[in-house]
Amino acid sequence: MRDEATAFVPGHITGFFSAHPDDDPTKAGSRGAGLTLTDGVTVTVEPAAETTIALDGESLEIEPVTTVLETLEATARVEAESELPLGSGFGVSGAMALGTALAANRVFERTLSMNELVTIAHGAEVQAGTGLGDVVAQAHGGIPIRLEPGGPHENTLDAIPARARVEYVTFGELSTADVLSGETDQLTDAGKEALSRVVKEPTLLSFMYASRLFAREAGLVTEQVARTIGDVTDVEGQASMAMLGETVFALGTGLSDAGYDPNVCATHPAGAMLQ
Amino acid sequence: MRDEATAFVPGHITGFFSAHPDDDPTKAGSRGAGLTLTDGVTVTVEPAAETTIALDGESLEIEPVTTVLETLEATARVEAESELPLGSGFGVSGAMALGTALAANRVFERTLSMNELVTIAHGAEVQAGTGLGDVVAQAHGGIPIRLEPGGPHENTLDAIPARARVEYVTFGELSTADVLSGETDQLTDAGKEALSRVVKEPTLLSFMYASRLFAREAGLVTEQVARTIGDVTDVEGQASMAMLGETVFALGTGLSDAGYDPNVCATHPAGAMLQ
Repeated sequence: MRDEATAFVPGHITGFFSAHPDDDPTKAGSRGAGLTLTDGVTVTVEPAAETTIALDGESLEIEPVTTVLETLEATARVEAESELPLGSGFGVSGAMALGTALAANRVFERTLSMNELVTIAHGAEVQAGTGLGDVVAQAHGGIPIRLEPGGPHENTLDAIPARARVEYVTFGELSTADVLSGETDQLTDAGKEALSRVVKEPTLLSFMYASRLFAREAGLVTEQVARTIGDVTDVEGQASMAMLGETVFALGTGLSDAGYDPNVCATHPAGAMLQ
Repeated sequence: MRDEATAFVPGHITGFFSAHPDDDPTKAGSRGAGLTLTDGVTVTVEPAAETTIALDGESLEIEPVTTVLETLEATARVEAESELPLGSGFGVSGAMALGTALAANRVFERTLSMNELVTIAHGAEVQAGTGLGDVVAQAHGGIPIRLEPGGPHENTLDAIPARARVEYVTFGELSTADVLSGETDQLTDAGKEALSRVVKEPTLLSFMYASRLFAREAGLVTEQVARTIGDVTDVEGQASMAMLGETVFALGTGLSDAGYDPNVCATHPAGAMLQ
């Protein structure tokens, strides 16, 4: 057993998605597309007498993290540092689950493969209702297109071959669990339409266009988000809403040009990795 | 049309493999495992009146690169800078094919997806007989395990969740095309055995052990390579032979400890990427 191990997991902004439930959480998930981010979560795992979880120094319960540790039969102190806020559409809970899986596998020498670890983290996140596609996207990196739902043994991924500077502003939280437990038919129809658009033309511009249409059609845009997207459009920028958070993201200098004071990062070429 | 675009593709050392021919070059390929490297190839594509290819300033013909450009209906000047020697088991021809696909797609605005570009580069490489699995590994990054052969629409990948410092020394070239066009039954049996070992225990140590066994059983080890691997083993290091080149690679400081003056790099967490 090692002293500790640390993993970095990129953040993930989902532009659009469709929900695909299944009794088996490793088969359930979402189709869709998003941007993985150089801003992300660093997770350190070290063996301990009882399991504790802290995010930016504050103790908290994160169900998918607990599930991952139980699956790996590991009792550990998990300490995460996040450049991104929780509950605002950046996949922070997925990042914590996946980072915990990678680091705990190393510390406790569980000799699991990458796909096995991603399956465990994805299943834990789906079971908790905190996300449907962040984990597989975060394991992939880049700008993943999730063609089929589920963990790595089930899904099919492609990607948009591009990189971008990304700006974002967050106005508040939205509960993924609340949205996903409600009526998702309209959302799923809009998500399928957005996906076929991006499959036909896998470029950043078509991704942003499809994401904006999706946000509008799925009825998830708040007044503040609509106004901010409009401000970016007014200066000929490309912006949309992060699913699911009261967050607007833009390519290049879209938000700065519109007079906002955004956080700035970029798409992350690699997936989750040990440090 | 843009002025030019540049892509970086990590090098790839194959530790072991089995060959799986198919009439369709996008289905043919290999199973196996290897290390992608921070040492790699940078490929710049710019539109030109006629197609020319240069590697480190020297004009040459590289069939997979020509095939990629033809498939993308692009006439271009391709300039590659490589940190790795050609023909020595680092996947340089695959890197040039994949880098050309990524950069040409951007320059000529062909709006293909990542999987489509990887399929084109993989097929071109297989058709030329210069490689069977480098391209899909180089598109993935990390330490990929190729569970099923072929391009991204056919294959199945997993990975060893680890990172490592990598050292290597090269004594000369081996022709991939010559080895692959010969009798490959013994090689393929050894490759399948190595793969099941690494699938059972996806760690760096088991990868190195399986690679050494494979190199010996496949009958590819030259006298110089055998001596160098032995020298590293004598200092309790982990080394094996790069498939296919007269190259020895080691984890950590294996070759330095054994008194060699190796090149030093590391595993590359990301796959091929635009710059």
